[in-house]
Amino acid sequence: MLAAARAAFAERGYDGASIRGIATAAGVDPALVHHYFGTKEGLFLAAVEAPGDPDEFLPEVLAAPPDQRGAAVVGMVLRVWDGPGRSAVLALVRSAVNHERSARLLREFVLTKIIRRVVGSLDVPREEREARGALVASQVAGLVLMRYVLKLEPLASAPREEVVAAVGPTVQHYLTGDVLLPGRRD
Amino acid sequence: MLAAARAAFAERGYDGASIRGIATAAGVDPALVHHYFGTKEGLFLAAVEAPGDPDEFLPEVLAAPPDQRGAAVVGMVLRVWDGPGRSAVLALVRSAVNHERSARLLREFVLTKIIRRVVGSLDVPREEREARGALVASQVAGLVLMRYVLKLEPLASAPREEVVAAVGPTVQHYLTGDVLLPGRRD
Repeated sequence: MLAAARAAFAERGYDGASIRGIATAAGVDPALVHHYFGTKEGLFLAAVEAPGDPDEFLPEVLAAPPDQRGAAVVGMVLRVWDGPGRSAVLALVRSAVNHERSARLLREFVLTKIIRRVVGSLDVPREEREARGALVASQVAGLVLMRYVLKLEPLASAPREEVVAAVGPTVQHYLTGDVLLPGRRD
Repeated sequence: MLAAARAAFAERGYDGASIRGIATAAGVDPALVHHYFGTKEGLFLAAVEAPGDPDEFLPEVLAAPPDQRGAAVVGMVLRVWDGPGRSAVLALVRSAVNHERSARLLREFVLTKIIRRVVGSLDVPREEREARGALVASQVAGLVLMRYVLKLEPLASAPREEVVAAVGPTVQHYLTGDVLLPGRRD
């Protein structure tokens, strides 16, 4: 079912895919899909989480020394994108750029499942966390966009280690560095 | 004519495409293309559906002191997005994320009309320019994605000056700082 869901979401986007179509492709009854995943949204999140379940890859990031957390984040994101889940993640990004609701879904997912856990693991003031997380997300998302979607060289072809060496320090700076954070009241 | 132009620019890049070739593909006289679009640049801007002409907003960026070029780039991008052209730019980004050919067009546009001119105005070695430009693009594109598309707070609501203060130093670092650049052979 998840494989069929990923294919459907990758080919047709969130709005174009249907539980009925996915069930047919998987050779099961639509009621079974509803039983396991509830709504299409639930199925979508499950399909998206499957190629890179944060519970699988986050512990490694969180185990990195605090001053190497930035490089660990970049390395983790590149490994997920270079892995077999790329087409499903790309479908997620496409949906998010095209549809307000998908954008909300992705934002919720990235915020609650990834950013808050990475930033929350660091010794930074609570009121700085949201801004630091958003800045990290801006750099990481842009890197993904340039390397995998627009395929801008040399980012598109460079080995992962070189990309980590170039961008990791920026993410580290946003995580723990001396940044003029937006949205502060002081 | 525009369809032929899009195909040509996407396949051969800005430098490789010619008005003569585009006119032939469209089955019209080159003089007609010149009549409607003036130069190749005019045709390119129309093909990309660029919401603004870089010649209008780039001079201000290029006039900023070299050590404030990063902040100038971020400020310029935010002004364009906060202006009346936002929906047109968003359409451009959506198209690029959805279609390989649009992605190539946007990449050509951003590369030849913006990045190369900003990076080319700086005193950095020629062989570093492509990588520095790509890194700048990654940060700026991600910022746009988070602020205007995913609407991640506090980036979505923060005043432009605060965003420039937070992200400008990163862009400056990529432009002129001590970065381990990807794609180098040394």
